[in-house]
Amino acid sequence: MPKYSIGVDFGTLSGRALVADVGTGEEMGSAMLEYRHGVIDERLPTGRKLGMDWALQYPMDYIEVLKETIPEALRKSGVSADDVIGLGIDFTACTLMPVKADGAPLCYLPEWKDNPHAYIKLWKHHAAQDQANRINALAEKRGEKWLPRYGGKISSEWALPKILQTLEEAPEVYDAADYFIEAGDWVVWTLTGRQSRSAGLAGYKAIYHKRDGYPSKDYLKELHPRLENLIEDKMGCPVSPLGVKAGELTGDAGLIGLKPGTAVAIANVDAHVTAPAAKAAPGAMLAIMGTSTCHLVVGNEEKTVPGMCGVVEDGVYPGYFGFEAGQSCVGDHFAWFIENCMPAGYALEASSRGISPHELLTEKAGKLKAGESGLVALDWWNGNRSVLVDVDLTGLMVGMTLATKPEEIYRALIEATAYGTRVIVENFRESGVPVDSFIASGGIAAKNPTLMRIYADVLRMPIRIAGSAQGPALGSAIFGAVAAGSARGGYDSVFDASDRMGRLLDRTYDPIPANADTYDKLYAEYKALHDWFGRGGSGAMKRLKKIKKEAVE
Amino acid sequence: MPKYSIGVDFGTLSGRALVADVGTGEEMGSAMLEYRHGVIDERLPTGRKLGMDWALQYPMDYIEVLKETIPEALRKSGVSADDVIGLGIDFTACTLMPVKADGAPLCYLPEWKDNPHAYIKLWKHHAAQDQANRINALAEKRGEKWLPRYGGKISSEWALPKILQTLEEAPEVYDAADYFIEAGDWVVWTLTGRQSRSAGLAGYKAIYHKRDGYPSKDYLKELHPRLENLIEDKMGCPVSPLGVKAGELTGDAGLIGLKPGTAVAIANVDAHVTAPAAKAAPGAMLAIMGTSTCHLVVGNEEKTVPGMCGVVEDGVYPGYFGFEAGQSCVGDHFAWFIENCMPAGYALEASSRGISPHELLTEKAGKLKAGESGLVALDWWNGNRSVLVDVDLTGLMVGMTLATKPEEIYRALIEATAYGTRVIVENFRESGVPVDSFIASGGIAAKNPTLMRIYADVLRMPIRIAGSAQGPALGSAIFGAVAAGSARGGYDSVFDASDRMGRLLDRTYDPIPANADTYDKLYAEYKALHDWFGRGGSGAMKRLKKIKKEAVE
Repeated sequence: MPKYSIGVDFGTLSGRALVADVGTGEEMGSAMLEYRHGVIDERLPTGRKLGMDWALQYPMDYIEVLKETIPEALRKSGVSADDVIGLGIDFTACTLMPVKADGAPLCYLPEWKDNPHAYIKLWKHHAAQDQANRINALAEKRGEKWLPRYGGKISSEWALPKILQTLEEAPEVYDAADYFIEAGDWVVWTLTGRQSRSAGLAGYKAIYHKRDGYPSKDYLKELHPRLENLIEDKMGCPVSPLGVKAGELTGDAGLIGLKPGTAVAIANVDAHVTAPAAKAAPGAMLAIMGTSTCHLVVGNEEKTVPGMCGVVEDGVYPGYFGFEAGQSCVGDHFAWFIENCMPAGYALEASSRGISPHELLTEKAGKLKAGESGLVALDWWNGNRSVLVDVDLTGLMVGMTLATKPEEIYRALIEATAYGTRVIVENFRESGVPVDSFIASGGIAAKNPTLMRIYADVLRMPIRIAGSAQGPALGSAIFGAVAAGSARGGYDSVFDASDRMGRLLDRTYDPIPANADTYDKLYAEYKALHDWFGRGGSGAMKRLKKIKKEAVE
Repeated sequence: MPKYSIGVDFGTLSGRALVADVGTGEEMGSAMLEYRHGVIDERLPTGRKLGMDWALQYPMDYIEVLKETIPEALRKSGVSADDVIGLGIDFTACTLMPVKADGAPLCYLPEWKDNPHAYIKLWKHHAAQDQANRINALAEKRGEKWLPRYGGKISSEWALPKILQTLEEAPEVYDAADYFIEAGDWVVWTLTGRQSRSAGLAGYKAIYHKRDGYPSKDYLKELHPRLENLIEDKMGCPVSPLGVKAGELTGDAGLIGLKPGTAVAIANVDAHVTAPAAKAAPGAMLAIMGTSTCHLVVGNEEKTVPGMCGVVEDGVYPGYFGFEAGQSCVGDHFAWFIENCMPAGYALEASSRGISPHELLTEKAGKLKAGESGLVALDWWNGNRSVLVDVDLTGLMVGMTLATKPEEIYRALIEATAYGTRVIVENFRESGVPVDSFIASGGIAAKNPTLMRIYADVLRMPIRIAGSAQGPALGSAIFGAVAAGSARGGYDSVFDASDRMGRLLDRTYDPIPANADTYDKLYAEYKALHDWFGRGGSGAMKRLKKIKKEAVE
């Protein structure tokens, strides 16, 4: 009798449940629900106006996802709840909420519902930059040893800046909150009736280290006197490695169409959970490509890799170190081009042929040879996340002539993201983290063979493509099967589960040596420009940003 | 009784005659005729196919312009030929033809009409680049003192490369030609019955110097043994300063609707002739803005100005040194953007509002503040003509973000051309050639107030705009009036004539100090990039061109 596992992937605008066959990974059925409140970035449900750069969510929306999508996915699959052995979830992060001791979100309570700080601060809440700057400056001043693990700079999107903002702007909310908790951990708490904390969420977003713990009391106290006991008071729950069972569904399981006692996995980050779904073994770099790209590589040893996003033990696979790096402008890069630079004639051609602008440009760009455009770009339209870790860097393109065509610019933008990836790969290798193969996941990877061909040639590595269009949900289902364990028909090891349930497309992009030779030369140009503009040779980008800021003030 | 002068402007595709009032410069009437053969760049009239980069013309087309447009312009003006005292012409250059001793074009003769080298090589005939390279290399090796007068490099468009190409590829044509002559000088010869050579044409296009003459026999002999006597054999006619009478119309004057004895001025270059029409006095820089920009400034002393296009005594005004510099990508720059980068939504908006794409973008760009885009570009989409004199330089843009809009890019391209102009202005000043005011002419100057505002702010100089839409023809009419002399109702000095007949719009763009301050900062960024990429700091542009060349081979 086949067994099944369910993965629920909570994205920025919607949640999705997937029923997967535990033996084969076959995707039996899925269902999606958009969040009723979406991203709250203008006004609270009460009507209260929000400030610039705010982005909130409402927890009831997540519960609705569970109640609607799991039963619907089961129905579509024709799978009985009796055969579902495990449940895993993944979540955007850091998506942080203040809750009471029993897990009740502050924003549910009448006395807090008109206070924006009582709501969930979504990952892309960017109103805590000032706090992040001070956190970084103090950590640097004190030489905090955790700082290098995060590329020398933590992001305003992470937990500590969000908590500090709450304390500074709404101390009454800070006081009223018994816990600050990632929404992913909170959903697991709701399902299992007991609080747990994911090593992935804590490690990548809350500066948690398996041996050193969170930032010290000393540091926190110097940051703000009232933060001294933050960890023990409001984040005190022990941290669990990924691949562990968080608990079992409670008696309320019927509300989401499942049986009490079903195993529930520790929560995961929505990007990182893709690793087992794409069979990304240690040494393989997994690129989760979307508007931006998240790079994961898993190794045996903790290494200091300059300018990456984080290294977390147990943070991707239990017993391993998960290294994360990122590029902040990938799909966004190409979308920017389509919106701002694609000429009318091309738009007409695409629509008359019934293809998308991306398809048209990809087709035209695909006919060009490596090097033919004479262009090189720096992919910094949205700053550089790794390895320079500098949001104030901007885009650059060189080599244009009066004969330069739109598809050449488009291809140069694709190539720029490939060069940026190569910088990251080489940076890992130079720091002693092996990268011996490359797997790409996400819509771009599956849909854009021209792009993947360019990546293979630039990286001089064969590239494989993740096989599921619902990678995160499949990854969560895999962790659900591991939470269940072999005794219940699941797995005891995430690697075994990944091996059986993970999926790759039957397609490999092998580098073509002649192209790779040309790209070696072009990459040398990219790298020289990268270092000149990114490492202080020319400070033009920052000065231009400053002039721009003065101009608009 | 008012007197009149006629200017005939021979452009790339058509010729235009203008009748002007000698006392006031008032434009009484004009007429235009397109050349019947246009630019011959695919096949000779005989059907013979041409090579890559060839561009020829047919001399009969010029004669038709004289016969058609002068009578028509007179008719439209209501002016009698009796009251026409002078005629001036200007021409594209170097537009070079081989002729017999009596002025008969070789290509008229049956035995030569199927040989492409017997035709007129138009200024934009670019098939003599190999010859130009060897001419430059030899001049540099020998340390020829004329080389620095032309920015260290002569162009493949000029006379010597065209002649050398003829000698090497068609020695029989070289032998059969009694003269090589600029089409402008040839038209004057046809009108007056005697050969003359213009200091402007010879100085800017044939390496002629008032005191040193043409390149030496020694040099020419080393270039090609058969060129030793080129000058005395085939270009031996004395050179006349501008502002002098070349001769008078012959008995055939009736064929063009004029009276025999009418004074005819020495021929001029079509850009340079604009100077008196725009009242460009010594010390004023005149920018003739079109697809590219030609900068003229007239001074009292010969100076060595690094990287300009040429300095010629008597070449713009008699008795003065005319300095020429240039930017190879101005109108072309903006046209490239419209064709390749303007998104469909903007095209739709422009057409629905019944305005041109340029008008729409200019309007949007005009609403931005100086510095607001955060962008800086190097205006080298078509290489750099002055002061780096390097066709292998290419375009660069820096500062793009995901919020960058098309109008910001468009404005950055405009600003780049303004910065390029400032480099030229500062280069002249640093070399001891005063530039104390700025006059712009050409369609862009009259039609684009946003652009002129930017130029005024970037240059920190008031900018005046030439008043005639037919600047070259008016300039030629002014020289016609000077050729007639005061005794016949004209002028004895081109400055007097310019003062009375030249025209400026009643509009001055004064620099706005706050903008100019911002542009000082942005110009510093431009200059740093200019020097880094243009003077050897980074050879990226050339290496990319090399990679591109290898890729397409």
